[in-house]
Amino acid sequence: MQGQLSTHDTVISGARVVTPAGAAQCDIGIRDGRIVTLGTDLSGNEMIDATGLIAMPGGIDSHVHIAQPSGPGIEMADDFASATRAAACGGNTLVMPFVLPDEDQSLREATVAYLARAEGQCLTDISCHLIVKSADPVTLGQDLPALIAQGLTSFKVFMTYEGMRLKDSEILQVMDVAKGQGALTLVHAENEDAIEYLRDKAERAGDTAPVFHARSRPVPVEREATHRATTLAEVAGVPLMVVHVSNGAALEEIRRAKDRGVKVYAETCPQYITLTADDLDRAGFEGAKCVCSPPPRDTHEQAAIWAGLEQGAFDVFSSDHCPFRFADEKGKDAPGARDSFRNIPNGIPGVETRLPILFSEGVSKGRISLEAFAALTATNHARIYGLTNKGALMVGKDADIVLWDPTLTKAITQGDLHHGSDYTPWEGFAVTGWPVRTLLRGQTVMENGAPVGAAIGRHIARDKVAA
Amino acid sequence: MQGQLSTHDTVISGARVVTPAGAAQCDIGIRDGRIVTLGTDLSGNEMIDATGLIAMPGGIDSHVHIAQPSGPGIEMADDFASATRAAACGGNTLVMPFVLPDEDQSLREATVAYLARAEGQCLTDISCHLIVKSADPVTLGQDLPALIAQGLTSFKVFMTYEGMRLKDSEILQVMDVAKGQGALTLVHAENEDAIEYLRDKAERAGDTAPVFHARSRPVPVEREATHRATTLAEVAGVPLMVVHVSNGAALEEIRRAKDRGVKVYAETCPQYITLTADDLDRAGFEGAKCVCSPPPRDTHEQAAIWAGLEQGAFDVFSSDHCPFRFADEKGKDAPGARDSFRNIPNGIPGVETRLPILFSEGVSKGRISLEAFAALTATNHARIYGLTNKGALMVGKDADIVLWDPTLTKAITQGDLHHGSDYTPWEGFAVTGWPVRTLLRGQTVMENGAPVGAAIGRHIARDKVAA
Amino acid sequence: MQGQLSTHDTVISGARVVTPAGAAQCDIGIRDGRIVTLGTDLSGNEMIDATGLIAMPGGIDSHVHIAQPSGPGIEMADDFASATRAAACGGNTLVMPFVLPDEDQSLREATVAYLARAEGQCLTDISCHLIVKSADPVTLGQDLPALIAQGLTSFKVFMTYEGMRLKDSEILQVMDVAKGQGALTLVHAENEDAIEYLRDKAERAGDTAPVFHARSRPVPVEREATHRATTLAEVAGVPLMVVHVSNGAALEEIRRAKDRGVKVYAETCPQYITLTADDLDRAGFEGAKCVCSPPPRDTHEQAAIWAGLEQGAFDVFSSDHCPFRFADEKGKDAPGARDSFRNIPNGIPGVETRLPILFSEGVSKGRISLEAFAALTATNHARIYGLTNKGALMVGKDADIVLWDPTLTKAITQGDLHHGSDYTPWEGFAVTGWPVRTLLRGQTVMENGAPVGAAIGRHIARDKVAA
Amino acid sequence: MQGQLSTHDTVISGARVVTPAGAAQCDIGIRDGRIVTLGTDLSGNEMIDATGLIAMPGGIDSHVHIAQPSGPGIEMADDFASATRAAACGGNTLVMPFVLPDEDQSLREATVAYLARAEGQCLTDISCHLIVKSADPVTLGQDLPALIAQGLTSFKVFMTYEGMRLKDSEILQVMDVAKGQGALTLVHAENEDAIEYLRDKAERAGDTAPVFHARSRPVPVEREATHRATTLAEVAGVPLMVVHVSNGAALEEIRRAKDRGVKVYAETCPQYITLTADDLDRAGFEGAKCVCSPPPRDTHEQAAIWAGLEQGAFDVFSSDHCPFRFADEKGKDAPGARDSFRNIPNGIPGVETRLPILFSEGVSKGRISLEAFAALTATNHARIYGLTNKGALMVGKDADIVLWDPTLTKAITQGDLHHGSDYTPWEGFAVTGWPVRTLLRGQTVMENGAPVGAAIGRHIARDKVAA
Repeated sequence: MQGQLSTHDTVISGARVVTPAGAAQCDIGIRDGRIVTLGTDLSGNEMIDATGLIAMPGGIDSHVHIAQPSGPGIEMADDFASATRAAACGGNTLVMPFVLPDEDQSLREATVAYLARAEGQCLTDISCHLIVKSADPVTLGQDLPALIAQGLTSFKVFMTYEGMRLKDSEILQVMDVAKGQGALTLVHAENEDAIEYLRDKAERAGDTAPVFHARSRPVPVEREATHRATTLAEVAGVPLMVVHVSNGAALEEIRRAKDRGVKVYAETCPQYITLTADDLDRAGFEGAKCVCSPPPRDTHEQAAIWAGLEQGAFDVFSSDHCPFRFADEKGKDAPGARDSFRNIPNGIPGVETRLPILFSEGVSKGRISLEAFAALTATNHARIYGLTNKGALMVGKDADIVLWDPTLTKAITQGDLHHGSDYTPWEGFAVTGWPVRTLLRGQTVMENGAPVGAAIGRHIARDKVAA
Repeated sequence: MQGQLSTHDTVISGARVVTPAGAAQCDIGIRDGRIVTLGTDLSGNEMIDATGLIAMPGGIDSHVHIAQPSGPGIEMADDFASATRAAACGGNTLVMPFVLPDEDQSLREATVAYLARAEGQCLTDISCHLIVKSADPVTLGQDLPALIAQGLTSFKVFMTYEGMRLKDSEILQVMDVAKGQGALTLVHAENEDAIEYLRDKAERAGDTAPVFHARSRPVPVEREATHRATTLAEVAGVPLMVVHVSNGAALEEIRRAKDRGVKVYAETCPQYITLTADDLDRAGFEGAKCVCSPPPRDTHEQAAIWAGLEQGAFDVFSSDHCPFRFADEKGKDAPGARDSFRNIPNGIPGVETRLPILFSEGVSKGRISLEAFAALTATNHARIYGLTNKGALMVGKDADIVLWDPTLTKAITQGDLHHGSDYTPWEGFAVTGWPVRTLLRGQTVMENGAPVGAAIGRHIARDKVAA
Repeated sequence: MQGQLSTHDTVISGARVVTPAGAAQCDIGIRDGRIVTLGTDLSGNEMIDATGLIAMPGGIDSHVHIAQPSGPGIEMADDFASATRAAACGGNTLVMPFVLPDEDQSLREATVAYLARAEGQCLTDISCHLIVKSADPVTLGQDLPALIAQGLTSFKVFMTYEGMRLKDSEILQVMDVAKGQGALTLVHAENEDAIEYLRDKAERAGDTAPVFHARSRPVPVEREATHRATTLAEVAGVPLMVVHVSNGAALEEIRRAKDRGVKVYAETCPQYITLTADDLDRAGFEGAKCVCSPPPRDTHEQAAIWAGLEQGAFDVFSSDHCPFRFADEKGKDAPGARDSFRNIPNGIPGVETRLPILFSEGVSKGRISLEAFAALTATNHARIYGLTNKGALMVGKDADIVLWDPTLTKAITQGDLHHGSDYTPWEGFAVTGWPVRTLLRGQTVMENGAPVGAAIGRHIARDKVAA
Repeated sequence: MQGQLSTHDTVISGARVVTPAGAAQCDIGIRDGRIVTLGTDLSGNEMIDATGLIAMPGGIDSHVHIAQPSGPGIEMADDFASATRAAACGGNTLVMPFVLPDEDQSLREATVAYLARAEGQCLTDISCHLIVKSADPVTLGQDLPALIAQGLTSFKVFMTYEGMRLKDSEILQVMDVAKGQGALTLVHAENEDAIEYLRDKAERAGDTAPVFHARSRPVPVEREATHRATTLAEVAGVPLMVVHVSNGAALEEIRRAKDRGVKVYAETCPQYITLTADDLDRAGFEGAKCVCSPPPRDTHEQAAIWAGLEQGAFDVFSSDHCPFRFADEKGKDAPGARDSFRNIPNGIPGVETRLPILFSEGVSKGRISLEAFAALTATNHARIYGLTNKGALMVGKDADIVLWDPTLTKAITQGDLHHGSDYTPWEGFAVTGWPVRTLLRGQTVMENGAPVGAAIGRHIARDKVAA
């Protein structure tokens, strides 16, 4: 398009541009933070030569935990600044953390306070889910409708964690609000009662090392809760997102629910395709580094999760980033943690490594296509959660773009990462393919592995969800 | 065996003698209440000519409710006298009711009191299950072990009915006692929370007629609880009996549990092969006559239950006899019952009609064999519940025998029945085949449809159950 | 982009532009037959105002039969001219017919002759599949490799139709060629032996009306062949496309095969979501109008197919257009057809109505999204069959575009259609949404329901298929 | 019953008498070869003290091959004398071999000749199945009806073995005869075409050792044929016996067929619970000793077969005794056998070890009950195949009885066996429980491991089979 006036602020040229519908060799023209042109020979004030690179929609990580209250004396390793810095360096342009009220806060108060903490700190956009840990009339009748109206259109309920988990009757009430107000319900599906039974039994038997975290949360407790959650959604007539599906049996429950006509979305995470329960059995206290819930399983279940990814049984691939420091009494080494796995804070860091792991294990190894990668890491998140302007390299969308060098190989190592944790579960894990530049609404926020520029990230209000 | 000394008290001659292993034409020699000889040309002091009849093991109905506390102002229609009279007239020689403690009773106190009420009243033998409605330390640590040691080796837990139902954590504790003490756990599998949600919704919509009892307890709530119950048994490592399975989806959950290696037994009842939810929609308040839980479903689910019976997916066929009077404020017409199905006492009478219905619909119509009938109505009950001396026409077993006339046709009608209820859900239901004589430990307790003789029934202690 | 030089031949402005990744409001700039720009305020020599319309990738119908040999005395109702005219009027820009050799032709000879017949006749592009009806060494060793190298990279095998069908051993040999040469195998899955058995039985019983076509090809014969075909693909290690899946049981086999790790694609057609076997039972000989294989089933199976479409279990939605005239001895009224359904030519016309039916029943009724529609009718066909430049509204792709008026309502009627058949099975079927303009490589070939312009369609060579 | 006249020829006293309905401590009174009395203190001319032993119905092995034509130069290792001698020593009282016509024989001629060879040779009773290897009009229209009328009421069809296997159309015709005449169809379910494909491929790759027999007949080829066979039975409306089910996937197909309402019986064999494909990989040519079809699988599939046995998914447990000598050119060491597994005669000896293996692995190890053992090894065979007077210790049945010493432990070793083969696949296999006495129609034919008495075995005509 030689001779045209320079009508773009920025043009990315020469990349292979990927969308779930296919890939094209074309330029991306950006103006006022949005993609305004896809074409050839575009001109712009800033020209980014992306020859040999792949342009993808910026990663959306719809399942991260940032600075979330974690019990007395325990502290998450990331605030908004460090979490979004790590996210941007890992190729993401938007992350979705959870608002969890403190003991004495209402959900609305908690949201105000939480967003205030994010204000001016973020290198990516954010958009918050809510955690509903109480089905009291104020939460259901006032807070949720108000917050949904403000664009916080999704909330998670827990079937595990005493103090967080809801009873079936409460979940049904929450689903009713979701239905009436146009929000999506997410569920953490593990049967708390069965876990407590097995945990108590393990402790009585002296089985207190980190690996017994995995053994006391076996596949059946997740399968059971998944079947129950999908049944509650069936009874209430609402769609449901089952987060962090770790095994084939739980995935089978989701498939069966779909066959019954229930609208169920499914998420999985890097830990379920790369780690196993054996990683919790590492020498000394090292296994604590991989303690998360649901726990990693075995190679057989990894294969089932891969089959699901290949067949399109999963809608989204998230990190469930939930970072604690390892050598820290406020983290994994909490008081009592070495006496029993019960006291080890639950969760692992992963927001920065999610995309390279899936790219390498999935795309580079030929298991999934670039198109599927884009769908699993960005487009589907945007579609399902109502992020209208996000998730695809299309005219009119925000210019949230990540450039990948598919040939770059490296071993993941803590020294290269930007999160607040002092370790990564994937230390030494070799990958092929790495994001080399991230643009948020047209502005570069990461280049060559380093964060760039100001904290321009905003909180994004979302659309309501159709029942 | 002409010329032999008369060594039998009683000989039944000329019948086709049925056991699950096959049928034989032979005489049954009885001495001291036991079968001592199976042979030909036997002689006895009393000779019963059973030419043309079928001799079966006396029916065991392992699921009946007799004189059980039913809430304020509500009363069951049967005491032990009327219930066992009806049972004997329906071809049974043993029934298994449930001990349910009153508010202020311990389980042991309740058992003593309940057995005292039965004493001297019964025309059949009885053997009691326990209902565990509280997982307190006394019940679990003292009462259950003591009662199991006395031969009450099975107990039911409820996942429905507020006030009765246990939480998952409590069910696991109960299962642990069962495992440690050698007892079998029975479960009523319906998700109470989901039912309450649907019931409240129905009432708010003005849907209060009896049929909404069925609509507020749809198949998914039973399927869900069945999957959960079998998972809890899987986690605890115990066998489980799922009572009154009403539909194919719940049965499928049982099959899946077996495939996972869980030892699960399944029971169904006459209402699930003959009635449908439409029977709860009969004109006026008539539908209340068929209100029971789980509710009858539809013809599609009836077919699934039949398929299960034909394939051996069910172990036992019981009545779930739970009788209330229809035209009675202490029964179906309880205060508020016409305002909402919620207030209709739950349960239908059936101890007297169970066997003829299955004989007619199953054997006479060619769906199941005589051998399968004997297994489903007697032998399997005895085997599973530890009734060592019961359930088969074998040497050494109690002479609990029922003689059937397979050609007798009649229409079931309340006027012919002996229970305490004032109606039968099967009024007018035509059957082919009817029991014409019942012997309990060698003594005739029913002849030609009428009760005979004294109340010689006893409470039978049972063997422990292998895990 | 005011002020820019006119660099486009054609610009479509104002439409909602749909791709599987989402929809955008933007202009489409076309030059030299390709999409070169997606942007705003584009200028072009020809400006098409599409305000209020939806721009979709031109429909690809990957399953049509045109002028195919059909047995002695029988003739298909469409040649390339009429078939592609109808296709264009129905919103398509490419159709995929099948090369079927005559008795004395090799596959290569047949291809040459078939493409010659198409030359200069087509209003849409075409790209041919091959039919392998003989696994002789010349076909497998020479013809297939040569034709695949020319870009005919897919072939269908039949498990039914005497004279066409291959034995399992032959299918495995064909799959081996597919694997070695980079082609995709399609399968028509019905068990011919079982059909012949049932057909002979029906005829002996005098059951010769058209409806017995459906009754002699019941669901189990399709389910069986589907399981077998997927197993053969599993054994040979190749991907497989199962065409015209008509029911839930066959779809379940495909799902099970995927769970085993087999790469299986699935196709369904309008007849399986709109017609039932009852349509073959219409008065007189009218039922012959709906005789096709597999036959339409019942509403229960329609629901299963819909569930599959909604959940993404189907990859492509095609017409299986296979047109015969009704009032014609060379068509449905063939000699003997009124004596037995066996003699009725098999197939129905549908290339022109496929897209409006799915748009109306799927999109307008809210069952599937616009994105899913684009994927099912165009994008997935292009991706699976190796049509690199087709199937999506992306920069660099051919400007194959169809504009939809989503508000246009009409009743389908033969008088409006452009195919060679003298009837449509959907006479009177009401739809909402209709394509109003079709562009093939930037040139309008249909406007307001009428074909436009010259027969510019070409045969498109395709990429090889990855195993 | 002291003082009674001696009315029995023989009385077995003191044993635990087992039937599928349960076990009893009683005497068995025998007269004229039949069981006439089950009772206590019986007197007889011959008194057999069986104190401490278990009395079981004599084993019925409904799947053995004796002196069957096996291809040019190949000879089975057993004639009727040696096979039934081994059978009796292994606790059996009836075996069911197969009539296979020679090239130039009709099925009726073959039957006459085969029965003539058995005449006067047998130490157990026998009852023959037919093999239908040709669906010609004489076989279907004349031979089968005549032979069924003579009491040969079952026939096997093969889906594998070139020269034996029938096409689907032929199987359907055979099933039609079965339906019309009251016979049962047995099927050997493996897909021959797929096997040939894999066998050719293996040979081309130089993979010719015995283990490749197993690898060229993988689970999918058996699963496929099982699904197809059950579908053909579904289409024809007949019951079906699937013999020698070797894995969980095939068993799952049987379960699914039952769920569809098809009456399917299932058989498994000792090799599928004790051997694996690794046994075909033994050093040198030793693996040939375990070459049989379907081949043994792996421990995972063994577990699935065990689960089926425990849950009642299998009806019968047979040996598939098919004996060849190992060090013999007419046996396993046939010409070419060391060049390719293709040339190794297919089959292993097992008629003498079947019962001890199941008793030891099943009963002694607590996996199945004595009652289940009796059902799986005798009662169900008799019921399913129409052996009216066989299979249970009931009054009126033939006195076919085997006495077990449940405490006897030994290692299986060729030196102790009585078959014509020169090896056993279970050399050194340790078992607990062994039959110590076998009575055929009241006469002892084995005692303490040695054959006893004359060859009194007869051919038993069987009842017709209900559809």
